[in-house]
This record gives sequence, structure tokens and C-alpha cells, in this order.
Amino acid sequence: MTPPCIILVEPQLDQNIGKVARAMLNFGLTDLRLVRPQTEWHNETARRLSAGAEGVLENARAFDDLMAASFDLHHLYATTARPRDMIKEVLTPREAAPRIFEDVQTRGERVGLLFGPERCGLENQDIALSKAVITVPLNPAFSSLNLAQAVVVVAYEYYQAQGGIPKARAAPAALAPEKDPPATKEELQGFLEQLDQELEKSGYFRAAHRRAVMTQSLHNMFSRMDYTSQEVRTLRGVVAALVNPNGIYSRPKRKRGD
Amino acid sequence: MTPPCIILVEPQLDQNIGKVARAMLNFGLTDLRLVRPQTEWHNETARRLSAGAEGVLENARAFDDLMAASFDLHHLYATTARPRDMIKEVLTPREAAPRIFEDVQTRGERVGLLFGPERCGLENQDIALSKAVITVPLNPAFSSLNLAQAVVVVAYEYYQAQGGIPKARAAPAALAPEKDPPATKEELQGFLEQLDQELEKSGYFRAAHRRAVMTQSLHNMFSRMDYTSQEVRTLRGVVAALVNPNGIYSRPKRKRGD
Repeated sequence: MTPPCIILVEPQLDQNIGKVARAMLNFGLTDLRLVRPQTEWHNETARRLSAGAEGVLENARAFDDLMAASFDLHHLYATTARPRDMIKEVLTPREAAPRIFEDVQTRGERVGLLFGPERCGLENQDIALSKAVITVPLNPAFSSLNLAQAVVVVAYEYYQAQGGIPKARAAPAALAPEKDPPATKEELQGFLEQLDQELEKSGYFRAAHRRAVMTQSLHNMFSRMDYTSQEVRTLRGVVAALVNPNGIYSRPKRKRGD
Repeated sequence: MTPPCIILVEPQLDQNIGKVARAMLNFGLTDLRLVRPQTEWHNETARRLSAGAEGVLENARAFDDLMAASFDLHHLYATTARPRDMIKEVLTPREAAPRIFEDVQTRGERVGLLFGPERCGLENQDIALSKAVITVPLNPAFSSLNLAQAVVVVAYEYYQAQGGIPKARAAPAALAPEKDPPATKEELQGFLEQLDQELEKSGYFRAAHRRAVMTQSLHNMFSRMDYTSQEVRTLRGVVAALVNPNGIYSRPKRKRGD
């Protein structure tokens, strides 16, 4: 299976080609095709802005027209504003990505993702060669998306559809159990009891009826979240330090007679 | 309801600030905050690259530190590579977006989306102040995402979530805003400063190198969860009581001469 290629029609700025190369490689795409490029793309500017994706630039190929550029592909998806005067399915990047993934992965087909010139977008004749249009949902009051950023959004969505989300995630993403296991309820209770006792000693509760309310509120607060064992020990250390300033609260105990 | 703001920590290039402004407005965001910007952002380069989003640049505000930049917010989400040695929930942009939308839309809370410097990403002390980390899934072999493009992905996902989620959702059970509003970062920071000061006085930190690590760990722990204003006042009362047992920490003040 071959990941989609990116086809830029008449790109005008070398820096944009560099940035597109970078964005492509960020999301695992490497096949860049240029239709009638209006600028160099092997130069220093493009290389610098590719930020390490020079390989994508070096392997980029230029073509005279979209037909030639897409000769070996099965489908084109044209990223552009919603076209007027053309009957064509319009998808968001999110809708398009799983379909493209299915083309590529399930059916082994080759797909080109098409982007127009910076200033004017794709022309109807190129859109007409495409299977569907991809339109990025944008603030209607400010809808000119930069070329490289349009590539970012579409490539990002494809990467998501592909399953680009890191696999090795701990079930509750919150904690890193291998290093520091989540606290057990027993550990948390130990801390809460310590806190209750110290607050009792400090006179915090003042009146008996207040005690129940305040205790419940504190327990609620500290039970709402996930702590690790180490964090509960830290909380215990904090309480011990506050009630026993400059004390020996956590120093190793000495034997009698030392 | 206030859409999320974008906070850039030590941005180095004026062009990136311009591009971020453009990407923000593309997805309907307008509140840009800069922490210790290392460059101008009112200049011609930034304006040109904002491509019409000059209003975002003009209204951008600079701050000395993240605490100041986030004083009126309820939650920070830190966009960065998966942090090492820190217990913090890690979300993809797709997982984070509906949660942020819920913070903003359902609960009326204010959210900051945090992005680090171009070359090095966010430092742990800033990540520690955040509720969760957002990590963009990227090609593991080429995972340096450009600053503006990281903003594109996160803002794009927020814009999607904003459009995709049914409006009439029941308020989540955690907090009851009508009775007790969620704590702002300013309130939480007040508590953290109090805690730091009291621990300093108590000799808890013992050595200077330990101070930074311990402080960060505590900030991390208390920034992970949602407190209400009342709960933060309770935490302050607890610390005051522990360091001043049987004290007058929260008794009504008497007039002189009583």
C-alpha cells in the first residue's frame, strides 16, 4: 500500500514548498508532486523551511499538467473552497480521511491530495479531475488558509485515520504507572486521616457540627483526582512540615543512644 | 462564554507570531497572549504573515511570566511533546478539543492553550501549571512540528469540536457553577504562593536544588484538577490552620478596644 501523494498546482513560493515538505513528513507522507511550479524548490530557502525534510524536496517531481502528475493514481481529492457551478461531493478533512484511508489501505489504491496556488486556489478544470472536494471548515469571516497549513490539516487527518495515535498509551492516560503507581485508596485514606488529626489539633474545626462538613469537603476535594503513591507521600510530607517547622519530620530515625 | 486564548511562551520569530495570528483567526480565536516575547510582533513581517489578522496582533498582550498571562483563566492546556518525569494527563488534540469545548461552552470557564518556544518546547515549570498536556500525534521519525502548525492543529480541532457537539448538554456533575464558581488561576496561584512561603519557612525544602523540584511537583499536583473558589479558600484555611494552631487565622477580627 502506498500512502497518498501531495500535489501542489502552480505553487508560487519556495518557502511554501519547503513548509509543505516538512508538514508532509510530520505526518508520514513523502511523495511530493508539483504541477507547473512557479519557483525553485531545490534552493536554500525551501531546504531551510523543510527543517530536515530535504529528502521530500529532493524526490519531488515536477509535471506540466495535472494529468501527467496523476498518471499512476487512482483518485484525486481536491482541497479547495467549496466550488461553485460544479456538481462535486464536498467533504470535510475529517470526513475525507477515513475514505482515503480505505482507498489506500483496504483497496490498495493510490491517492493524490491536490492543493491549488497560494493566491487563487484550484481551477475548475483541476477540480473536475477529482473524486471529491475537501473543504476545511473555517471562520467564515476569515477563511484564507495558508497553503502549508491546508496541507497540515489534511495530512493530520489522514494520519489520524491511519491510526497515527501512539499505541502504547497507559489506559488512564493520566499517570505513568510503570514509574510511579497510582495511589491506592488506602494510601489516600492514610493521608486524609493525618490531615484530619492535624486539623483537629490545630483547632481548625472549632465546632463539632463544622467538623463533619469541613471533613467531607476536604475528602471530596482530595478524592476527586488521581494521585500517585509518591504524590500522596509528598502530601503527607507537606502536612508534616507545616505542623512541625524545622522539625525532623522526615529525617531518618536514629537509634536510641546515638 | 469566552473562546480559548492562545499563549505563546518566549516566541522567537516575528513571522511565527504573524502566522499564529492568521491561524487563530482562521478558526475563530482572537485572544493572543505572549510570555516574554523574544521579538517584535507589531512590525511589518508579523503583519504581512498574519495575512489580514492584524487585529489579533494589535490586541495581543505581553506578560512577564505565565502566572501573569493566565491570571483570569480557569485552565491551561500545554501543547508539547509528551513530558518526561511529570505526572500529567496526555491528550491528543482530538481528545482535548471536546473537553476544552465543554469547559468553555457548558461551564462558561476560560481556557488558555499554551505553546512553547520554537526551538525547545515548554519547560516543566510551565507544564506543571497546566491541567493536561496536548501532544499532536506525529511521525516518530520526524516529529518537530512548526509552532504555527501546532496552533493550526489544536485550533482546528477546537473549531471542529465547537461545530460538532450538541449544544444542550447537561452540566457535568463535578462542579456546580451556579453555587460555587470554579477557581481562577489567580486564586489557585494565591494558594500555591502561600503554600510555597509556608513550606519555605518550615524548612521543608532543605536544599535549594530540592526546592525547584518539590515546588514543581506540588504545582503540578494542584494544577491537575478543577477546584472551586470555595475549595481554594478552604485549602488556604487548611494551610493557615496547620502553621498557626489554635491561632486567629480565620476568626472574625475584633475592633481595637474590645
